[in-house]
Amino acid sequence: MADKVDILAIGAHAGDAEISSGLALCHHVNLGKKVAMLHLTLGEKGHKEMTPERYGELKRTEAEYAAKVISAKVYFLPYKDGELPVNDEVKFAIAEVIRECRPSIILGHWTKSIHKDHINAALNVPDAIFYAGIAGFRMKNPAHYAGTMYYAENWEDREDFVPEVYLEVTKDDIKLWEEMTSKYALFRGEVVKFPYVDYYRSLARVRGPETGYEYATAFMLPSGGHRRRVQSFL
Amino acid sequence: MADKVDILAIGAHAGDAEISSGLALCHHVNLGKKVAMLHLTLGEKGHKEMTPERYGELKRTEAEYAAKVISAKVYFLPYKDGELPVNDEVKFAIAEVIRECRPSIILGHWTKSIHKDHINAALNVPDAIFYAGIAGFRMKNPAHYAGTMYYAENWEDREDFVPEVYLEVTKDDIKLWEEMTSKYALFRGEVVKFPYVDYYRSLARVRGPETGYEYATAFMLPSGGHRRRVQSFL
Amino acid sequence: MADKVDILAIGAHAGDAEISSGLALCHHVNLGKKVAMLHLTLGEKGHKEMTPERYGELKRTEAEYAAKVISAKVYFLPYKDGELPVNDEVKFAIAEVIRECRPSIILGHWTKSIHKDHINAALNVPDAIFYAGIAGFRMKNPAHYAGTMYYAENWEDREDFVPEVYLEVTKDDIKLWEEMTSKYALFRGEVVKFPYVDYYRSLARVRGPETGYEYATAFMLPSGGHRRRVQSFL
Amino acid sequence: MADKVDILAIGAHAGDAEISSGLALCHHVNLGKKVAMLHLTLGEKGHKEMTPERYGELKRTEAEYAAKVISAKVYFLPYKDGELPVNDEVKFAIAEVIRECRPSIILGHWTKSIHKDHINAALNVPDAIFYAGIAGFRMKNPAHYAGTMYYAENWEDREDFVPEVYLEVTKDDIKLWEEMTSKYALFRGEVVKFPYVDYYRSLARVRGPETGYEYATAFMLPSGGHRRRVQSFL
Amino acid sequence: MADKVDILAIGAHAGDAEISSGLALCHHVNLGKKVAMLHLTLGEKGHKEMTPERYGELKRTEAEYAAKVISAKVYFLPYKDGELPVNDEVKFAIAEVIRECRPSIILGHWTKSIHKDHINAALNVPDAIFYAGIAGFRMKNPAHYAGTMYYAENWEDREDFVPEVYLEVTKDDIKLWEEMTSKYALFRGEVVKFPYVDYYRSLARVRGPETGYEYATAFMLPSGGHRRRVQSFL
Amino acid sequence: MADKVDILAIGAHAGDAEISSGLALCHHVNLGKKVAMLHLTLGEKGHKEMTPERYGELKRTEAEYAAKVISAKVYFLPYKDGELPVNDEVKFAIAEVIRECRPSIILGHWTKSIHKDHINAALNVPDAIFYAGIAGFRMKNPAHYAGTMYYAENWEDREDFVPEVYLEVTKDDIKLWEEMTSKYALFRGEVVKFPYVDYYRSLARVRGPETGYEYATAFMLPSGGHRRRVQSFL
Repeated sequence: MADKVDILAIGAHAGDAEISSGLALCHHVNLGKKVAMLHLTLGEKGHKEMTPERYGELKRTEAEYAAKVISAKVYFLPYKDGELPVNDEVKFAIAEVIRECRPSIILGHWTKSIHKDHINAALNVPDAIFYAGIAGFRMKNPAHYAGTMYYAENWEDREDFVPEVYLEVTKDDIKLWEEMTSKYALFRGEVVKFPYVDYYRSLARVRGPETGYEYATAFMLPSGGHRRRVQSFL
Repeated sequence: MADKVDILAIGAHAGDAEISSGLALCHHVNLGKKVAMLHLTLGEKGHKEMTPERYGELKRTEAEYAAKVISAKVYFLPYKDGELPVNDEVKFAIAEVIRECRPSIILGHWTKSIHKDHINAALNVPDAIFYAGIAGFRMKNPAHYAGTMYYAENWEDREDFVPEVYLEVTKDDIKLWEEMTSKYALFRGEVVKFPYVDYYRSLARVRGPETGYEYATAFMLPSGGHRRRVQSFL
Repeated sequence: MADKVDILAIGAHAGDAEISSGLALCHHVNLGKKVAMLHLTLGEKGHKEMTPERYGELKRTEAEYAAKVISAKVYFLPYKDGELPVNDEVKFAIAEVIRECRPSIILGHWTKSIHKDHINAALNVPDAIFYAGIAGFRMKNPAHYAGTMYYAENWEDREDFVPEVYLEVTKDDIKLWEEMTSKYALFRGEVVKFPYVDYYRSLARVRGPETGYEYATAFMLPSGGHRRRVQSFL
Repeated sequence: MADKVDILAIGAHAGDAEISSGLALCHHVNLGKKVAMLHLTLGEKGHKEMTPERYGELKRTEAEYAAKVISAKVYFLPYKDGELPVNDEVKFAIAEVIRECRPSIILGHWTKSIHKDHINAALNVPDAIFYAGIAGFRMKNPAHYAGTMYYAENWEDREDFVPEVYLEVTKDDIKLWEEMTSKYALFRGEVVKFPYVDYYRSLARVRGPETGYEYATAFMLPSGGHRRRVQSFL
Repeated sequence: MADKVDILAIGAHAGDAEISSGLALCHHVNLGKKVAMLHLTLGEKGHKEMTPERYGELKRTEAEYAAKVISAKVYFLPYKDGELPVNDEVKFAIAEVIRECRPSIILGHWTKSIHKDHINAALNVPDAIFYAGIAGFRMKNPAHYAGTMYYAENWEDREDFVPEVYLEVTKDDIKLWEEMTSKYALFRGEVVKFPYVDYYRSLARVRGPETGYEYATAFMLPSGGHRRRVQSFL
Repeated sequence: MADKVDILAIGAHAGDAEISSGLALCHHVNLGKKVAMLHLTLGEKGHKEMTPERYGELKRTEAEYAAKVISAKVYFLPYKDGELPVNDEVKFAIAEVIRECRPSIILGHWTKSIHKDHINAALNVPDAIFYAGIAGFRMKNPAHYAGTMYYAENWEDREDFVPEVYLEVTKDDIKLWEEMTSKYALFRGEVVKFPYVDYYRSLARVRGPETGYEYATAFMLPSGGHRRRVQSFL
């Protein structure tokens, strides 16, 4: 069994976890926490010139380099870009990773997206958390219940996304995140023209002041996540 | 200036604060906190036989007896049952009470109701909190900002009400609340047939188990109230 | 073919139909109507000490005893707790039960829940009703169209649930329901600490006064269920 | 005091009640029921060539002729087109009309509209019904509670309007409605180019088949209007 | 490879595309454009007397005659009425048709419907457009991206449907559409009593004046479809 | 009568129009268009040390200097900070300004805000546009209909705000906007700690890439604003 981590970030394609949950990961790494990333596909169809096979290999290598920057364990599932299904095979595979690295917190895609793999990632994760947490489901690793899930803010998953939990990040966190994301040709601007790093850095400067911080990265809560129980209002 | 209180409950009619925010008030009184109640009208038109004048006098006396049970300061505004307006006169009058008793927490009506006074109470309170908190508005008492507001669960204000903050209450809190509410003929079942005490006691037994308590009383957050700022997820 | 029933209640796990649709079933049984229950799984994974195999056997026996209390026909599908799929196999199996017992009314889970089996139960039922009603689908029993469906109020299925149809229940109905639910160790408090019977009894005392009854059990209508056609407003 | 009517239709401008609630009025008149109309303004600013004064006079005459076609009592409030306020003066004036003609059913504008007078009409009516129904409010006529309100379908009030109650209308009802609406130059196409009569006649042919009728006119229920209480599902 | 078309209309059952997207198709044919239709099932179970086999044959013939009226290429998928699944097999089959006829615009069912095949049609189409557009998915025909999709207004798919894009149609368009729909016994009133042609003709007379036309047929935009990018407001 | 402008931006407090609609104003000024600003209050209560009187004078001067930077006509209404009412006096005063400068486009506050003056500004403007456009309302200037309104994105008005219309802005537009906003002590960071200029500059870098631009400023459409009428889809 692997070492226990504090946070597991799950992305549809290699790069998704780093770019949209990455500031939160770097922030916690700088606080001394342990993190892991799970890529459900390599996102290998996104290159105009390279074949999926070749770009997939490159993405895998990039993902490993990126993970190394934050000393993260990195997991891959063998699904193909654009073809991530919603079914028990995927859910149990994610559940096994959860049981393996035993996170307290899971970060992932919001359920509404312009990309079908993002939607399907979001639809698989809650059941995976359920399967991982119930001992009655026999798997390689013993049951582990990852109690808390947050949806990451992602420019492709904006429909009905409302920022609810603002996590402060510092300039040092941003620097570490820039180093991590620079391992991907995609984020260095060599694949498509979307300015990923600038976009999310600017977004951190927007979310910060909204809640009294200099920089922040924002997440949404799952339904029911607003509920609080208290024994006093004071 | 009056003594500072911890919680101020605001109701449209004498009785509203006691019946729907009452369990929360009693709970905090049993924790040693100080509370106050503000009745925007006497609710004097609700009796089939007594004239509004006479029932109004009775309601005022009942409100004073009820407040005494929990050592609460009680305030009345001079508006008429069914005719509570939404305007700056009402808002500044509420603001003056807020400045007078300086609560940390305000409890009040949810904005959707089958009773127009309840709706109007809900529409006045946010601006009153704003006026009370800004020194630029000159009033008898100095500015006081009551930071947190919760909407109480009330059988007449159910449309779109979603319980979000569950406050645990104990059997002792319920006993104190029954003593307080028993001061009203309305809640003793002598005016209308709605079984107020049974209803809210049963509701406390429903809300409790929903969140792992034996009994609880639930409140809704104002818009924006879901937002949280954190420096770590762990 | 079995005898025709008036109402069929469908639950994800043995016990779900009894606890959340049970008051409605008992009420109609006391009115002389015939009812049936269909359990899509045994809910056999919910016991901390017993194995799923053993607890499953117990739950099946309990379900049969509970059904006997109200002279209900009881049906089981062979799906596993936590693994109820959404597919045509399940839908046709439910459809066959509908064609077998020919209910006028179907009661079931609301579509939003914290439990995935409840969600999946809710997603299967409408298509099952459709399949049961169309003669073009060849099955063992002839076509039967169960025209009306109601969603039961259930503490695990609360998200966006709005009570719309309030069915009056009497103390005698509650007594019968307590006898029926007492057949389950789960509802006697021997399995988990949630106070099922107290919760739903208190809920009946809340729903009743909301609509002028002493006790009531509330249901939600399917989309389109609000539509009414009239030939006069008077 | 006037004779009691069965239905009172309230419109922002003379013509609104006739055109959007008119089929329902004609249908009930053909069933032998009594109806009344209340015009909150004359809608006198809608003519490109006539002055408001002159067009107002014409509209008043047209309203009286139209009412005569269905033997309806017609009421006017003295507000100006485009300037209908939301306040207690308007609400009590409407309440007095309600007490005067004592309808069982009230038909009126939906709350979302492209025309501010329509919105304000919709905002005044619920409080007017409340004032009319409570004896504690002293007015010329004794209290009368008009229990049921429906929102009429109107091409200017379409935002979020959902047809919920479909009232069957016959060809004879449509013929009577065409006679009534023909009293207005506006509906004869002499003022603006919107083809009022064709529009609502076509709409009746759309709403009818949606619910199994040849022709129907559809209304929306007020919030809370979906709630039903039953003593049996069968 | 077939000739490129301008518009492809996709319906769950033969007849759906003609009846609800048909006015738009006829309008564009009258403008000299090329159109195609894809029927996902034959809708062969809808006849009370004919067997599905026989009615299916008839529907296929009718669909071919209808298409001929507007010189449309017509495609059929081999799914059975009432059993259209949501899966990659369906999605790739639709994608192949899209690649084959290369439309600029796709018209189809809205996602909320009283008919499960309509819902499933709506759930398959967006992924089919995605698959058709990405060269990485190897299929018989080369990739084609059909950029714009509109949801057609359909009396069975009304839940939450909001008309957003109004396409003007003329009397000549309606005449052509009546000729096309007359090829179906269903639309001649020989199968069920719903007055299809009258309903949609009346609806065109309703939608037209709502936006200043004599006749119009209305469509809804996919989520995100409201977004506009401009370089000047003027 | 003043010169006709292309765009009028309306803000609750001096500074609101500049900071949230300012990039759009600067963009159009750089395109050679004419713009104006209307400040409903001076926002004079926002300074911790200066009296409202003194800060009000300063804000007025700053507003004039800011307007000069973009050669804008600037209008002030005499309402007090925190006390902007919703009534016909305000609405007609705004209407008179609209008639005076005759804009084609109006930019203003979204209706949901944490600041009551912003909400009230948003509630007054639609009726003001209506009054300005109808000749029947006699005012100093002749009627002018400002057809199009957009809601500006503002960090205090975020509840339910959805960016819908993205206006590209250039680095030159941003430079002009920085010069304009620098006229306010508030935006130079001398009054409160919110980093206004950095916030909105970062937001422009977020909104741009979301729609394929380098920088953009986003607006929301009024209800009904999504509707489009077309004569061809192609």
